[in-house]
Amino acid sequence: MINVAVLGFGTVGSGVVELIEMNQAHITAKLENQLNVKYILDIRDFPDSPYKDKFVKDFSVIENDPDIKVVAEVIGGATFAYDYTVRALKAGKSVVTSNKELVAQKGYELLQLAKEHNVNYFFEASVGGGIPLIRPMHRCMAANEVTEVYGILNGTTNFILTKMIEENMPFAEALKTAQELGYAEADPTADVEGIDACRKICILSSLAFGHHVYPKDVYAEGISKISLDDVAIADENGYAIKLIGQAENYGSKIKAMVSPALVPHTSLLSSVKDVFNSVLMRGNAVGDVFLCGRGAGKLPTASAVVADILDAAKHFEFLKGWGWQDEVANRVLSQEELDFSWYLRVENTREELLAQYPDADVVFDENGVIAAITKVENNGEHQKKQKNLKVLSAIRVLQL
Amino acid sequence: MINVAVLGFGTVGSGVVELIEMNQAHITAKLENQLNVKYILDIRDFPDSPYKDKFVKDFSVIENDPDIKVVAEVIGGATFAYDYTVRALKAGKSVVTSNKELVAQKGYELLQLAKEHNVNYFFEASVGGGIPLIRPMHRCMAANEVTEVYGILNGTTNFILTKMIEENMPFAEALKTAQELGYAEADPTADVEGIDACRKICILSSLAFGHHVYPKDVYAEGISKISLDDVAIADENGYAIKLIGQAENYGSKIKAMVSPALVPHTSLLSSVKDVFNSVLMRGNAVGDVFLCGRGAGKLPTASAVVADILDAAKHFEFLKGWGWQDEVANRVLSQEELDFSWYLRVENTREELLAQYPDADVVFDENGVIAAITKVENNGEHQKKQKNLKVLSAIRVLQL
Repeated sequence: MINVAVLGFGTVGSGVVELIEMNQAHITAKLENQLNVKYILDIRDFPDSPYKDKFVKDFSVIENDPDIKVVAEVIGGATFAYDYTVRALKAGKSVVTSNKELVAQKGYELLQLAKEHNVNYFFEASVGGGIPLIRPMHRCMAANEVTEVYGILNGTTNFILTKMIEENMPFAEALKTAQELGYAEADPTADVEGIDACRKICILSSLAFGHHVYPKDVYAEGISKISLDDVAIADENGYAIKLIGQAENYGSKIKAMVSPALVPHTSLLSSVKDVFNSVLMRGNAVGDVFLCGRGAGKLPTASAVVADILDAAKHFEFLKGWGWQDEVANRVLSQEELDFSWYLRVENTREELLAQYPDADVVFDENGVIAAITKVENNGEHQKKQKNLKVLSAIRVLQL
Repeated sequence: MINVAVLGFGTVGSGVVELIEMNQAHITAKLENQLNVKYILDIRDFPDSPYKDKFVKDFSVIENDPDIKVVAEVIGGATFAYDYTVRALKAGKSVVTSNKELVAQKGYELLQLAKEHNVNYFFEASVGGGIPLIRPMHRCMAANEVTEVYGILNGTTNFILTKMIEENMPFAEALKTAQELGYAEADPTADVEGIDACRKICILSSLAFGHHVYPKDVYAEGISKISLDDVAIADENGYAIKLIGQAENYGSKIKAMVSPALVPHTSLLSSVKDVFNSVLMRGNAVGDVFLCGRGAGKLPTASAVVADILDAAKHFEFLKGWGWQDEVANRVLSQEELDFSWYLRVENTREELLAQYPDADVVFDENGVIAAITKVENNGEHQKKQKNLKVLSAIRVLQL
């Protein structure tokens, strides 16, 4: 029997316990052993839970129990979760997690610590929920240099944008619907402003390009300023507006950023709807690999956490080599150093716009408002030009 | 240094050797060791090849060299490839392969043999070329019961169908274009008649549902009878015609089959174009996971083969548990036992059609030709009804 401890009994934690019970026969066959949740750590009381005998409040019970070989940290945040993860790794236990905040902030340190203590630290559920991403990138594309990564990494914003695109629902109303359905939190800032997606593109960039990329260095812009006008004009011209995390390897420098973007309808990314997440990875041998699935939710996320538990349980004595080196200072290019094509909606005449952008493709021109898509150009130059226009909205156009 | 032998220097074999050289620094870092192609086995001579010193014609050289721990079998077919695979496994060497014919026909036997000799037999490249499929299904979805699998598993036929859909090019001309571009062979039977896709759905079904499914038990129908009329009517009604491998687990019985099908435009599968392959896997926890990428070609396929080589090289002493049990007799349901919705184009009056199918949705009615989409019903019943009609074409409608 393999004994595990689950830290945190929220949505994901209760999903992990439920899934281990629901698919017990299948899991036992895969593991060739029984998987038993011995402890559930939570500060709250659950007197009516069928698992009430498993609850503990003191982490040292888990830390000091040699029976526990694998700990699933699904608390979230970077305070308690960090402390418990460090202690578990130091106690020689493998840790698996869905905690993108912790991996994005402390991934390098925790991967190093795991290595020192000859245990594994897995985080498949931290990006893309149930979508297999970390292993496909690290193992299946192992023979490739991953050159680019593009992703719809946040289900809440993708749900809101889908409502805006398909039902012509304004942002505020779509956000409210998302909150009512439990897809968005009461304080939606982390989702809506791109903070959550930023953590995830940090993890993917770190894994793809080999050095830790920290959120502090990554430009993140959310979707709260997207208007229905822009959504409609984009759609008519063959684009869907999506919140895109993107990363590209230029050798000594990299791009890593999150922003809304016009995604051409010819890309599968534009067809990813509702709370689904997806990632397009580009390898120098395999070309484009596209993965899509549920990026959040109780059982989809638990699916990835339990897969990590099974992998950790099968590899007690075998260190998986995934991870990355420490950060390289000044490696992430600033917005000014990058090249973009912009979609611009401006309160100007066609002549005023074309004076700044002679090559722009004007896609809308009514009542003194004009929209255009510019050629790709250095973004520092763009900023200068845009200062000479009355910009109503400016959204990057994804170049795939 | 890890020494490997590559069996077969055709498209995939030369791609494997090229890729190991091209991404040498990256591969060395991943493996924490150097990867060296010590032998290339081919019956042909390559006097001008930069690798000419590596060529051997006699497999026993490889078999008897204790330096060789991993053999990449990319010969194809089930004669020499089978013999060499058996001998390599018996000699204690792990084998990786892109050979879907061999895995579909002898997978169970070879996986057993590998286990007996404490080595690995990997076949990531046998389905979906470079797309990560085998590991995502087996490892990342390990906590799930995989209930259904749907796939565009053959790039040649998907290229032909894309030409038919987007350029209104008749089948024969699209096939000729595919042959000119090197996407179809001189004898295109295995691709066009669904034989290749059948082998792949056999492999996916075996892995997903735990028992070997042999091609002899699996219904396979190709695309040679698809007409431009059907492609156009389907498109106008919200469907793309695709060659679909599908499998579903009903417990003691399973569905496993290949046929053309109308795929609704709302499914990502309908957007997969040209030589791309894709697979939709449905798990009872994670829900739908969709994967897409290049299903064939030199470097994409080599990408999967070399990833398997790296995994095998990292796991000499560690048996990966993937595989399946022997077949269960009579487990695959016949076409008569399944339920389908059909798209029918018939030379009948509306009344004659509706006499057989009162609930059918008539989608085309001109000049004595009528097309309709029927409700889902047992296929034995369908066959009786269709005998009473002058059927011009009959294509299943995918129920996702």
